Amino acid sequence: MTKQELFENIKKKKSFLCVGLDTDIKKIPSHLLEEEDPIYAFNKAIIDATAKYCVAYKPNTAFYESHGVKGIIALEKTIEYIRIKYPDQFIILDAKRGDIGNTSEMYAVSAFEHLKASAVTVAPYMGEDSVKPFVKYPKKWVILLALTSNKGSADFQLTEDKAGERLFEKVLKKSQEWATDEQLMYVVGATQGEMFADIRKIVPDHFLLVPGVGAQGGSLAEVVKYGMNSQCGLLVNSSRAIIYADNTREFAFAATAEAKKVQAEMAGYLEQII
Amino acid sequence: MTKQELFENIKKKKSFLCVGLDTDIKKIPSHLLEEEDPIYAFNKAIIDATAKYCVAYKPNTAFYESHGVKGIIALEKTIEYIRIKYPDQFIILDAKRGDIGNTSEMYAVSAFEHLKASAVTVAPYMGEDSVKPFVKYPKKWVILLALTSNKGSADFQLTEDKAGERLFEKVLKKSQEWATDEQLMYVVGATQGEMFADIRKIVPDHFLLVPGVGAQGGSLAEVVKYGMNSQCGLLVNSSRAIIYADNTREFAFAATAEAKKVQAEMAGYLEQII
Repeated sequence: MTKQELFENIKKKKSFLCVGLDTDIKKIPSHLLEEEDPIYAFNKAIIDATAKYCVAYKPNTAFYESHGVKGIIALEKTIEYIRIKYPDQFIILDAKRGDIGNTSEMYAVSAFEHLKASAVTVAPYMGEDSVKPFVKYPKKWVILLALTSNKGSADFQLTEDKAGERLFEKVLKKSQEWATDEQLMYVVGATQGEMFADIRKIVPDHFLLVPGVGAQGGSLAEVVKYGMNSQCGLLVNSSRAIIYADNTREFAFAATAEAKKVQAEMAGYLEQII
Repeated sequence: MTKQELFENIKKKKSFLCVGLDTDIKKIPSHLLEEEDPIYAFNKAIIDATAKYCVAYKPNTAFYESHGVKGIIALEKTIEYIRIKYPDQFIILDAKRGDIGNTSEMYAVSAFEHLKASAVTVAPYMGEDSVKPFVKYPKKWVILLALTSNKGSADFQLTEDKAGERLFEKVLKKSQEWATDEQLMYVVGATQGEMFADIRKIVPDHFLLVPGVGAQGGSLAEVVKYGMNSQCGLLVNSSRAIIYADNTREFAFAATAEAKKVQAEMAGYLEQII
């Protein structure tokens, strides 16, 4: 998907919501455990319940890998279901991969040729050759970790160099040598508040993937205030607050209601730019 | 496995060799493609051919994930084969994982409960809560990326802070607050040469996992000179130079010869300490 196509979808749906499919078998409604593939059954219901209100889905690989082969089958089926039934959805494989060049090539094969995701999240620690193999695929995206939503983000990401440049700023600058804003986004946690203003100074035009609204405590209003640009430039993820809004047989209705609520708030913010 | 057990294995075998199972279906002998599971057939033969000369195996997840479910099955079978047939081998899942706490927990389930590896490589960018879930498992190990073997390692890992401390040094120091040298190792590329001396100043007692000897050009003699400690403290990985030493029907013999050659060199270096 191109950047322009993503923006068109955002305008059409009046939403920049990404629904995180962090599907934990311990948290899904118990009646689904009778299904042959409970994770897939849950995801399918969540996707049908929310597709109208979001522009992206983000399955997190950890949750699937924890079930071994069964989990990988559920992941493959989930992505295929989105691709076929909702082809305008942007599919983010949240995998935080990154290795030496010849190995990142293999991760790129997995994400883009095998799973056919639109984007994959990548960790920047190993530098250029760990990232570049992913951008060899036209219209596919790398979403590089910049400033994450968790407490541990302060351990290294905020370290200042001699010139006062923080590590996440160095990542934002350096990575622009590797790909353009047509293939590169950044992860910036919703919990980072005013830091979005600093980030927009370095990457005014890039899309940012913003986790941390909802269960992690980030504020959508604040993210928009400091992070939105003229092409929206934001994909805001919500996982737990939507997919686990209810754990009875009514879970899909609750997910719809929650996604619709977020979308309505987003529609208001989008009026500034469309 | 405990640190002492690992050292005992090193002394017994006079080897600190780790064989990297970066199995690429395009590089394995063509006659194996007729097998039901060519990747597993290749790994099994390589393991039988080299187990006498090494103390660890390191399957790299990227190579398996690139084949989807089939690859994951091959990975599971490979690890199970090592565990059952060669229970004294240290099994490193080279996955370079790392995510927010609740997600790293899932990766830990995958590595330690599902695959039953001895250790997993972890990327430090997301800090403490991305690493700690892995050390909740007694006798299981985190191998944290410190200074990697690739060209891109210079992009961020060498960045100096105001006090002149480089990022990889900060990682080495900070991470010692999260676990002891009984559960924490570091990845340091063999291509880093004299940097091992700087690293040993910060982590004199930790084991280091050292990739980059062989195909990537690192020197074993130099790694030993600057990196070996009184309990060896080194696991030196070789992947391509051993597993692809030959691609005919004689590949396993060639792998034995190559592993034996490295082991013989290592035995010489170990005389300094045992």
